[in-house]
Amino acid sequence: MTEVLSALVEIVGQDHVLSEDDLMAPYLTDWRRQFDSRATAVVRPADTQEVSAVVVLCMRHGVGIVPIGGNTGLVGGAVAKDGQILLSLERLSSIRSVDPLGATITVDSGCILRDVQDAAARYDMLVPLSLSAEGRCQIGGNISTGAGGLNVVRYGTVRDQVLGLEVVLPDGRVLDAMRSLRKDTAGYDLKQLFIGAEGTLGIVTGAVLRLFPAPERQVTLWIATATLDAVLELFQQVRKAFGNLLTAFEYLSGSTVQVISEYLGQSPPLAASAESHSVLIELAGSVSELTDESVLDRFAAWQDDGLVDASVMATDERKRDAIWRLRHSASDAQKLAGTCIKHDIGLPTSSISEFVRRIPAELRKEVSEFQLFVFGHIGDGNLHFTVAQDRHSKSHDIEPKRHWINETVHSLVVRLGGTISAEHGIGLLKRDALGRQIGDVGLSLMREVKRQFDPDGLMNPGKML
Amino acid sequence: MTEVLSALVEIVGQDHVLSEDDLMAPYLTDWRRQFDSRATAVVRPADTQEVSAVVVLCMRHGVGIVPIGGNTGLVGGAVAKDGQILLSLERLSSIRSVDPLGATITVDSGCILRDVQDAAARYDMLVPLSLSAEGRCQIGGNISTGAGGLNVVRYGTVRDQVLGLEVVLPDGRVLDAMRSLRKDTAGYDLKQLFIGAEGTLGIVTGAVLRLFPAPERQVTLWIATATLDAVLELFQQVRKAFGNLLTAFEYLSGSTVQVISEYLGQSPPLAASAESHSVLIELAGSVSELTDESVLDRFAAWQDDGLVDASVMATDERKRDAIWRLRHSASDAQKLAGTCIKHDIGLPTSSISEFVRRIPAELRKEVSEFQLFVFGHIGDGNLHFTVAQDRHSKSHDIEPKRHWINETVHSLVVRLGGTISAEHGIGLLKRDALGRQIGDVGLSLMREVKRQFDPDGLMNPGKML
Repeated sequence: MTEVLSALVEIVGQDHVLSEDDLMAPYLTDWRRQFDSRATAVVRPADTQEVSAVVVLCMRHGVGIVPIGGNTGLVGGAVAKDGQILLSLERLSSIRSVDPLGATITVDSGCILRDVQDAAARYDMLVPLSLSAEGRCQIGGNISTGAGGLNVVRYGTVRDQVLGLEVVLPDGRVLDAMRSLRKDTAGYDLKQLFIGAEGTLGIVTGAVLRLFPAPERQVTLWIATATLDAVLELFQQVRKAFGNLLTAFEYLSGSTVQVISEYLGQSPPLAASAESHSVLIELAGSVSELTDESVLDRFAAWQDDGLVDASVMATDERKRDAIWRLRHSASDAQKLAGTCIKHDIGLPTSSISEFVRRIPAELRKEVSEFQLFVFGHIGDGNLHFTVAQDRHSKSHDIEPKRHWINETVHSLVVRLGGTISAEHGIGLLKRDALGRQIGDVGLSLMREVKRQFDPDGLMNPGKML
Repeated sequence: MTEVLSALVEIVGQDHVLSEDDLMAPYLTDWRRQFDSRATAVVRPADTQEVSAVVVLCMRHGVGIVPIGGNTGLVGGAVAKDGQILLSLERLSSIRSVDPLGATITVDSGCILRDVQDAAARYDMLVPLSLSAEGRCQIGGNISTGAGGLNVVRYGTVRDQVLGLEVVLPDGRVLDAMRSLRKDTAGYDLKQLFIGAEGTLGIVTGAVLRLFPAPERQVTLWIATATLDAVLELFQQVRKAFGNLLTAFEYLSGSTVQVISEYLGQSPPLAASAESHSVLIELAGSVSELTDESVLDRFAAWQDDGLVDASVMATDERKRDAIWRLRHSASDAQKLAGTCIKHDIGLPTSSISEFVRRIPAELRKEVSEFQLFVFGHIGDGNLHFTVAQDRHSKSHDIEPKRHWINETVHSLVVRLGGTISAEHGIGLLKRDALGRQIGDVGLSLMREVKRQFDPDGLMNPGKML
């Protein structure tokens, strides 16, 4: 390994091969502190050519490579072991170009998502990808995990926004698919394989992303409804009435709103009981198509119809931020309950009600006391579903039942045609559950593709497969 | 081969193995009559299991399989040779289910596109994929060619609309990736490989497609501008002003409008000279967001600014159809000119002007007299670009220069970061040009993927690669 380290220094320079514990520490602690990560070194190449040279070197010596972006992943996708290197993309951080007429931005993969958003904003354009970690996560990590986030209902996931990709393949070749075209049927769309592959097929070093005109104004609403079915019916109605002005449709169960309220020490915009249901809706568009009057009229009609119990509308930034703060606090607030067993599930919209109705009885077969927090991007069928310790009987720790709870949730999700990973990925956390999700043929085909691209299994070893 | 034919009859029944010339004829004549297609038999399986059994049989006997849908392709993707079979998907024609709440439709791949559109319309939902051949093409063919069409500027290509896929692999295994989820990061997104692969990696037998709420009303405009740059600036302005109400932004050069007018014996909505530029714009939305007044106001302002010379607006179906008829006639009308050398190119929007400005001088290096017809989905950067015989000097046939003209057009397109195939595919027609388009690494990687999936090269042999 000493020989490899010297050769790495030759490629990237002394300052960019970190092997001391204190220097490596920030790279070894995962976001949720769930995993034990070690590495022989953290290597920080400066550009695509250096990434390629590092890959060639590691292949020659049989050294596993774990690519790492902003280290904000939730499934252990950037966790390494002794004998492996962590390859950080942080120095590939240039915005290569912005083309406002073509509505594209070309970036290095190590750019922080917020910097990409800001670069587009300077041309009055929008990078619609948006998620809680946007101030720290890197666009290459977003691409490699197939990130979703808050605006999928309108703009799709990162996959829908990537037009071109540059990838260092496991043998060091550089695939230049950096086209910025809306339509291209010249050959297989190879770049799709690397989106969401979590670095197991190669290392993303650059991308061309679609831009959209920045909306002139945004309106945020907080809605209370009596039932989950009313939430889903409201989604239909809002989609029909506002079409593509709808950019977010987020759900929070009553228990979730209550715990957030306690966590922030702040009342929600509308009083919430454990049985109530809240929705955060965001609309965005031009000043002429999105008027306060048109929004208020529609919601008043839905209230008259009994679909909506009450609603609050915010148009200025401060009030909108206050509403969003509730939503963004959901994940942290749950900690008040103690042990939280979290899931990132996706379901066909038409199966959401059935899942929420059936899961408590399934869980009660083995766990007598628990609390559920349900929230997330319900407009995309994506729920963050947490089975938490019952706050009123803390003596019953659910931790020993973690595996059984995961199995129970996954099993019902799969039976209902859903996914055990809607936007967080597989990584280490859900690797063993993947087979049930995608079936034998799918799993075999994935393995065959992996073997062909990376016969020695050195690209992010042990992740996903 | 007799043994194979008997075995095929065992699988699909006597009536569905066609080997007589007159029965096979409709399958052997391609849309533009450019290719010489032959086949040992046309085989028509009834369902996915029969497709799988046919594939297994053919693999065992080393018989090449050419999948064929509605036979409306333009690049020879469904052209076969003696010793190969044509596998028609026409009997896989069930709409499996429609989920209006989940906004998805699940179909067999042999469904005619229009039947899929109609099935969704019964639920007041929209299948946005729309193209001239929609009354005859099959959705499986659309998926396998990565179809684009008229609404890409708003809804993306078919790739953006496919949520799930069922594929018979070259070894007969069935990949069931028929999920109907907006977000799914469980494993590699394998279905992407088969979209646009022209049947070279497997046979698509089923799909889940996204649906959208059907718009309440549509407005079609015919616009005249003085320059191509004004067209591109207008695109920016319209996209900004109308956002996602914009569903089509189609361009027609002056020469194209003139030849259509002659072909139809009908004047265009606005008089066109050879130097003029016309645009067809379609907006779609709810009755409240899309009012005549809002549209007229915007276009009046653009006319005052000098961006638009004149405009005509149509809101009733008859008048809208009349405008669309002009656009749909572009391809046929060109025949009046004689020899037409057609291209389906894609360019970054910011390079379109440069291409149109530079290409005549490039062509004049070898061809003294010619006429250009330029039209297409300019909002997506996709132009149908025809180099035609000069109608006023028919003695100069450009046919002998076909290869040189193709090379010249492709070369400039590639230099400007474009694609030689925006929506028609590669097939036989552009196979030899693919390497220059995607580069050595891309081409090698495509070959490696093809070899892994189909080591004997029996799936649509000779297409694409």
